[in-house]
Amino acid sequence: MSTSSNHSTTPLSQTSGMWGGRFSEATDAFVAEFTASVQFDQRFYKQDIAGSVAHAKMLAKIGVLTAQERDDIIHGLTDIQTEIESGKFEWRIDLEDVHMNIESRLTQLIGITGKKLHTGRSRNDQVATDIRLYLRDEIDEVLQTLKRLQLGILSLATKHTATIMPGFTHLQTAQPVTFSHHLMAWFEMLVRDTERLQDCRKRVNRMPLGSAALAGTTYPIDRTYTAELLGFDEVSENSLDAVSDRDFAIEFNAAASLIMMHLSRMSEELILWTSAQFKFIQIPDRFCTGSSIMPQKKNPDVPELVRGKSGRVFGDLISLLTLMKGQPLAYNKDNQEDKEPLFDAIDTVRGCLMSFADMIPALVPNIESMREAALRGFSTATDLADYLVKKGVPFRDSHEIVGKTVALAVEEDKDLSELSLEQLQQFSTLIEADVYDKALTLEASVSARDHIGGTAPKQVEAAIARAHTRLEKLYATA
Amino acid sequence: MSTSSNHSTTPLSQTSGMWGGRFSEATDAFVAEFTASVQFDQRFYKQDIAGSVAHAKMLAKIGVLTAQERDDIIHGLTDIQTEIESGKFEWRIDLEDVHMNIESRLTQLIGITGKKLHTGRSRNDQVATDIRLYLRDEIDEVLQTLKRLQLGILSLATKHTATIMPGFTHLQTAQPVTFSHHLMAWFEMLVRDTERLQDCRKRVNRMPLGSAALAGTTYPIDRTYTAELLGFDEVSENSLDAVSDRDFAIEFNAAASLIMMHLSRMSEELILWTSAQFKFIQIPDRFCTGSSIMPQKKNPDVPELVRGKSGRVFGDLISLLTLMKGQPLAYNKDNQEDKEPLFDAIDTVRGCLMSFADMIPALVPNIESMREAALRGFSTATDLADYLVKKGVPFRDSHEIVGKTVALAVEEDKDLSELSLEQLQQFSTLIEADVYDKALTLEASVSARDHIGGTAPKQVEAAIARAHTRLEKLYATA
Amino acid sequence: MSTSSNHSTTPLSQTSGMWGGRFSEATDAFVAEFTASVQFDQRFYKQDIAGSVAHAKMLAKIGVLTAQERDDIIHGLTDIQTEIESGKFEWRIDLEDVHMNIESRLTQLIGITGKKLHTGRSRNDQVATDIRLYLRDEIDEVLQTLKRLQLGILSLATKHTATIMPGFTHLQTAQPVTFSHHLMAWFEMLVRDTERLQDCRKRVNRMPLGSAALAGTTYPIDRTYTAELLGFDEVSENSLDAVSDRDFAIEFNAAASLIMMHLSRMSEELILWTSAQFKFIQIPDRFCTGSSIMPQKKNPDVPELVRGKSGRVFGDLISLLTLMKGQPLAYNKDNQEDKEPLFDAIDTVRGCLMSFADMIPALVPNIESMREAALRGFSTATDLADYLVKKGVPFRDSHEIVGKTVALAVEEDKDLSELSLEQLQQFSTLIEADVYDKALTLEASVSARDHIGGTAPKQVEAAIARAHTRLEKLYATA
Amino acid sequence: MSTSSNHSTTPLSQTSGMWGGRFSEATDAFVAEFTASVQFDQRFYKQDIAGSVAHAKMLAKIGVLTAQERDDIIHGLTDIQTEIESGKFEWRIDLEDVHMNIESRLTQLIGITGKKLHTGRSRNDQVATDIRLYLRDEIDEVLQTLKRLQLGILSLATKHTATIMPGFTHLQTAQPVTFSHHLMAWFEMLVRDTERLQDCRKRVNRMPLGSAALAGTTYPIDRTYTAELLGFDEVSENSLDAVSDRDFAIEFNAAASLIMMHLSRMSEELILWTSAQFKFIQIPDRFCTGSSIMPQKKNPDVPELVRGKSGRVFGDLISLLTLMKGQPLAYNKDNQEDKEPLFDAIDTVRGCLMSFADMIPALVPNIESMREAALRGFSTATDLADYLVKKGVPFRDSHEIVGKTVALAVEEDKDLSELSLEQLQQFSTLIEADVYDKALTLEASVSARDHIGGTAPKQVEAAIARAHTRLEKLYATA
Repeated sequence: MSTSSNHSTTPLSQTSGMWGGRFSEATDAFVAEFTASVQFDQRFYKQDIAGSVAHAKMLAKIGVLTAQERDDIIHGLTDIQTEIESGKFEWRIDLEDVHMNIESRLTQLIGITGKKLHTGRSRNDQVATDIRLYLRDEIDEVLQTLKRLQLGILSLATKHTATIMPGFTHLQTAQPVTFSHHLMAWFEMLVRDTERLQDCRKRVNRMPLGSAALAGTTYPIDRTYTAELLGFDEVSENSLDAVSDRDFAIEFNAAASLIMMHLSRMSEELILWTSAQFKFIQIPDRFCTGSSIMPQKKNPDVPELVRGKSGRVFGDLISLLTLMKGQPLAYNKDNQEDKEPLFDAIDTVRGCLMSFADMIPALVPNIESMREAALRGFSTATDLADYLVKKGVPFRDSHEIVGKTVALAVEEDKDLSELSLEQLQQFSTLIEADVYDKALTLEASVSARDHIGGTAPKQVEAAIARAHTRLEKLYATA
Repeated sequence: MSTSSNHSTTPLSQTSGMWGGRFSEATDAFVAEFTASVQFDQRFYKQDIAGSVAHAKMLAKIGVLTAQERDDIIHGLTDIQTEIESGKFEWRIDLEDVHMNIESRLTQLIGITGKKLHTGRSRNDQVATDIRLYLRDEIDEVLQTLKRLQLGILSLATKHTATIMPGFTHLQTAQPVTFSHHLMAWFEMLVRDTERLQDCRKRVNRMPLGSAALAGTTYPIDRTYTAELLGFDEVSENSLDAVSDRDFAIEFNAAASLIMMHLSRMSEELILWTSAQFKFIQIPDRFCTGSSIMPQKKNPDVPELVRGKSGRVFGDLISLLTLMKGQPLAYNKDNQEDKEPLFDAIDTVRGCLMSFADMIPALVPNIESMREAALRGFSTATDLADYLVKKGVPFRDSHEIVGKTVALAVEEDKDLSELSLEQLQQFSTLIEADVYDKALTLEASVSARDHIGGTAPKQVEAAIARAHTRLEKLYATA
Repeated sequence: MSTSSNHSTTPLSQTSGMWGGRFSEATDAFVAEFTASVQFDQRFYKQDIAGSVAHAKMLAKIGVLTAQERDDIIHGLTDIQTEIESGKFEWRIDLEDVHMNIESRLTQLIGITGKKLHTGRSRNDQVATDIRLYLRDEIDEVLQTLKRLQLGILSLATKHTATIMPGFTHLQTAQPVTFSHHLMAWFEMLVRDTERLQDCRKRVNRMPLGSAALAGTTYPIDRTYTAELLGFDEVSENSLDAVSDRDFAIEFNAAASLIMMHLSRMSEELILWTSAQFKFIQIPDRFCTGSSIMPQKKNPDVPELVRGKSGRVFGDLISLLTLMKGQPLAYNKDNQEDKEPLFDAIDTVRGCLMSFADMIPALVPNIESMREAALRGFSTATDLADYLVKKGVPFRDSHEIVGKTVALAVEEDKDLSELSLEQLQQFSTLIEADVYDKALTLEASVSARDHIGGTAPKQVEAAIARAHTRLEKLYATA
Repeated sequence: MSTSSNHSTTPLSQTSGMWGGRFSEATDAFVAEFTASVQFDQRFYKQDIAGSVAHAKMLAKIGVLTAQERDDIIHGLTDIQTEIESGKFEWRIDLEDVHMNIESRLTQLIGITGKKLHTGRSRNDQVATDIRLYLRDEIDEVLQTLKRLQLGILSLATKHTATIMPGFTHLQTAQPVTFSHHLMAWFEMLVRDTERLQDCRKRVNRMPLGSAALAGTTYPIDRTYTAELLGFDEVSENSLDAVSDRDFAIEFNAAASLIMMHLSRMSEELILWTSAQFKFIQIPDRFCTGSSIMPQKKNPDVPELVRGKSGRVFGDLISLLTLMKGQPLAYNKDNQEDKEPLFDAIDTVRGCLMSFADMIPALVPNIESMREAALRGFSTATDLADYLVKKGVPFRDSHEIVGKTVALAVEEDKDLSELSLEQLQQFSTLIEADVYDKALTLEASVSARDHIGGTAPKQVEAAIARAHTRLEKLYATA
């Protein structure tokens, strides 16, 4: 868009053929460009054509079109789709949007019959139908990529049910966990994302077509038939609502925001883990880039970028909520602004999921570094406290005893297992030599958390097995 | 919170009894207050107590508590609940949160047994459980109020299936619709809100308890039993995820944002409709306030305030998304900030729904004003175009003819039905005297849109009937 | 970006020439595209080249480049700029960004000297410099368009200091105001926008160049000289901060959000005013579009679209805040995501201001409709109350009297001035025949508000005169 | 607020004494509470009283009040302030807001004169004045705390100009920097915050009083005099704008969001640095808390909580932008919702700054850990490349050589300085024994970045000295 500050206003050569009757001057050229949407709505040409084909079939079914007219329209539209996909179609700003570009070309190709296609519908219900069809297709793509990522996590998790790393709270070493258990936390986040997308899809897949401009049409349309042809689950119940409702886009952007939030959390961890300080994992070189200045650098670009992209989708969500918040019924031009924030959220979430689906299963954990880290930071302090509780010390007292033991260890810069039995016994004579095996080893600590949801290897193995079943079930209903 | 800029840092008198073992100095008093949550998390004392009762029963079932200990705990907790509800409970900042306040009081009341209650759990899984229980209860309340509002709309709509008003697009008169049809558009928005809340509730109603601090516990807990006692549908699958997951709060805030967006749209219309320019409805005095200066004023305060409150809930949503976006696993102190934005969204949405549920059925439409407005603004122009199409004029040509007719009417400051037959025939000789009845009356226009979703009175009556059935079905599953 | 869900990962043919030394495998093709920025950062090629020219001059000044080398570089860069502007430059994804595309082409054109240009700088400080130069230029453009709009408002306001319309609070008729006074409220909003942009510009116009990757460079650079060449006011004080600071972009987006909020408020009013119910103004046809279905429609597309675009810029603001919120120092790849939300805000605000600057001075008020509306809605009720106060009635009592008078008028569907003297005197015998002239005429009401900021025509004239002076002063310092 | 779903609507006992004249039924009790603001706007009672005192003085000056009346009012208001501050004042919901509560009490105390105070003003301009006075005071407090934090950073920085730590980009070790240099990056962020708050304060400190309800008043008020009494810099230019403008609150929330973003970034680093993996600093125990379960835990609660609170302020910003975006002029009830998001942002930013101002100067760096970390991660690789460039190797070739050297070091798990000269010479025979001192020591690397903004100790010392001067200058103008 040219926005030079001292441009002069220039009229287009003539008033619009679509609606110019009551107008006495042509649209200003800058305004025409400013208000056009074809630059971005051509993206759903395929859905627009599919919707028109179904509409034409319905019009023929109810006798508004002849069989011949219907077939002419369908052939014309098919040719247009070919033109578009081969890059030969000429998109025109002065025709405003994808709908008028295609309809206008159709009339060029098949003559006056082309004009009949718009009978019983309006751009208001047409665009609402197109976006829903488009979003439905995109949700299905996102779900497939999500599944690929979920399977990638499971495949990595399967290998590491016995790999021990420190679990953190407050980014302070808390208790040892298995790497697999940590990965399965990611998996759980993504399962909720699948559920939310599927819930959202139900509300996307309702057909507004037939609402016409706002009040319905005077033609005896058969909406159920059109809905069936287009694979919609239901038809909308109210025409005013149907042409102005954009809940589905907001709901998608909210679901997308949660996906991005999850990927951002995973990214935060990947970035920490590849730092020289953590060294928990390596990301294969093909997912990283270097520095033009610092020859030693290998940067975790993909997770950084994904983390950065989360804000973008949150912004897209806010854009849509703000967009809708004060609009009276029914369609207002404001709604044209629904597209770009939706498209941006779709593209962003797809790109990010794609890169994670490729990258995650290729991660290489540094098993030794993880283990060493788990041995530092007093990760088994809770186990020592539990050890004392089992010998009859009340938990709060035992907590106090271990707290003091840790204070000594901090002072001596040692881990708990590096303190001598004598040193330990300073704090409680109930501590005996078996403490090193029963409480202060990582394996003992991890295996003891042995219930659904716990980090014990056998529990995590069972969780992975359940995960496969759950996925199958989830995606069967998709 | 005192935030005077030249305060001195003051230590609390002693280190915390809960975790002070390894600490060498007491918490700064300002920090203690700054980091405490009891000021706002006491709100879910009831859920905290219910959770503790269930936990105690489970601990007794697995043999960690004796029956006597269990009963002592339950009696103690019951007494505490009574103390709280009668305003006698002393909440202490230095005890940080609702959990420690209650546990500490329990130990005062029943002695050392009170300390055993915390066996096999941690504040991390405890707070996650409490919020979910609390939110579940609130969702159920919201759903009830939503239903009351939906029924209120239906009751008003039932009376106005033949009341005609102008339908707008771009806030320009578009086509006549019935008032009932317009109200049913609101109803449809709110039905989606019900669905979303119910979908959200499924994901709220999963139990994190048993995840302990982050990795599970070494006690042989029976999570399924506790879940059953508390009415949870499922237990969480992964402890790291369970203590850090706040998806459910974000998902609720997203659903709440959509509700607020809908109420804001309805408000925008109510405000327009009560203006001197529209005069479509009257809001009873009891929902309005006046001006201390201008004696004539009667302001639509409730819809204005509700419209204004929409931004607040959008802000709460963004707060939570931002909160979570960069957190590594598992629990971080950041999460304490999940509560206030969630509570604010709950309170706001409840208050707004409540006021709408009271106000909407009490609205008084000015039937005459609506009708007059529908007669202005050329609302039947599309019908005139359709009239010509039915006489064989191609739609695009007919559109042009009517456009020019409207231009004349604008010039003469008349509506279409006020033009003489002669004047009309200037534009097309196909126009005959029957045009006034067949195309230019409101009733003809409205009745002609006769298909599912259309504004014809009989369609709207059917839609209202279906609405009752749909509500019953929706809330049966709630 | 191709995001088909079952693509295979494909390596680029070789590791990057820029940083590939320590890498053992080439970047994945999808990752290369996903992480590249050249698709959108080519937008500031001009600033990149200007920055490089200044850097080359500085390097020559300190003896790192010979005069010949400097001139070769400058000529090479000039040629590249020509290539870009004539559309002949081939942008390559595998070269990641605008910087490497230009540097690589420079080396093709002038040989090994091209590689010397990067001495003493890094892409981290280079990109930060480019964005600031770019944003500075854009702010200057925005300021010019803003000024054009401000002058447009003044020109319209000048004509309407005696045109009376109803002033609203709560969208209820409140008191009469002049149209000019209303327009000047818009003007005031925009003046604050100018101030904020100018304040923001101060913080944009500081030079990060010389910060190198994060810590500065080992070359004896002369930053003050480079800053002078590029028109920067200051050089940044800290290299770590300078490469990671994006405050200026956020501050711009916040200022842009306020501009959009103002334009959205103006739009809301324009949309109301063009409705059949208000009929206060006409927007010339060239700024409107029609409907493909409804021949009578003339829609206020520009204000609707502008109102809709406000959410977009709010979203861009949130994107940037979220982006930065958790980043440790110094540069992280997340920062690449700073560009699109900034660009989108710039483009949106420019396009919207442009369309308003064209449209506002062309608005045609319906003087009669405004006046009639001011006569309805009891707009002079406060004046009647003041009339009584001046006769000695305490204000609260007078308010009560007028309130009751209004209640009668509502009942009789009349305005206050349409009530007979007898009817008025029912409520207070202090009301005399002079009330119609002294209190109940619009002119009396308006002229009486005669102080700085009040709506009296002579005050508004004075305000317009001051406005011209203020603008001159404001833009003199720009 | 009671929001139980099946409450019945209850009228208040009578219509409002303030505006009830035209009303035929009393306000619903729930609505009265829902629409009241006194629960939160009582917070600026002090500013409300100060504004009223000044208004009374002005009214006396222009002859509307007698000297006696003025003095009665002032004494009455003084007494009310005492009542409020001693907790004896009874706030009443049915009096709606702080203004009517105080005015009503004034009339109780001093009789009918109390009613005269409201002459020539309205709650619309009164509340706008109060908020501005309140915010101005709060900004001044925030500025003082900000300054205390800035000085705290300088005091810590002064001690560590020779303390070396790794500088990071992409959280990968990049180049060595001094701890002081890193701290000074924080300082720079906060200086911009000071500037922004001061810029914002200019626009806060303009007086709307005198705008009355929307159009000004018929009394011959002297606004300049009132403004002088209240310390305002200017009076507002347009009454419609003045009663509806909330730009200043949004601008403050935007500035507050940037402060929070900065504190969140600092927090992110503090959290990383206190992890067992980094161990760069210790936060004194008084700023930390422990775990009720894990005895070893010492959690960096303050930075975590501050990081978490950033989202809250972003949300507050969005709330206000959304609030204003569609409002027509002039005052609408929506605006009542401006207060809580503003107050929340003020409180949050004050509390967070306070805790940082206390904590930052008390941080204890682990100088040895920092140094060791700087030695790991190949932080001097760039210096090695520069070493070769100075021996005549083109930079891109030198980069490649060092990249390969790093690859070897990674393989051998050594740092560059731990490779033997022989090993280094494999990659370039230009490397000689002096490389260890000239390029591979931390001190050499750091000192070599010797220009404004660079990390060389003497540059940072100079930067600290300049910082003191800059602060003095900044706060002198405050």
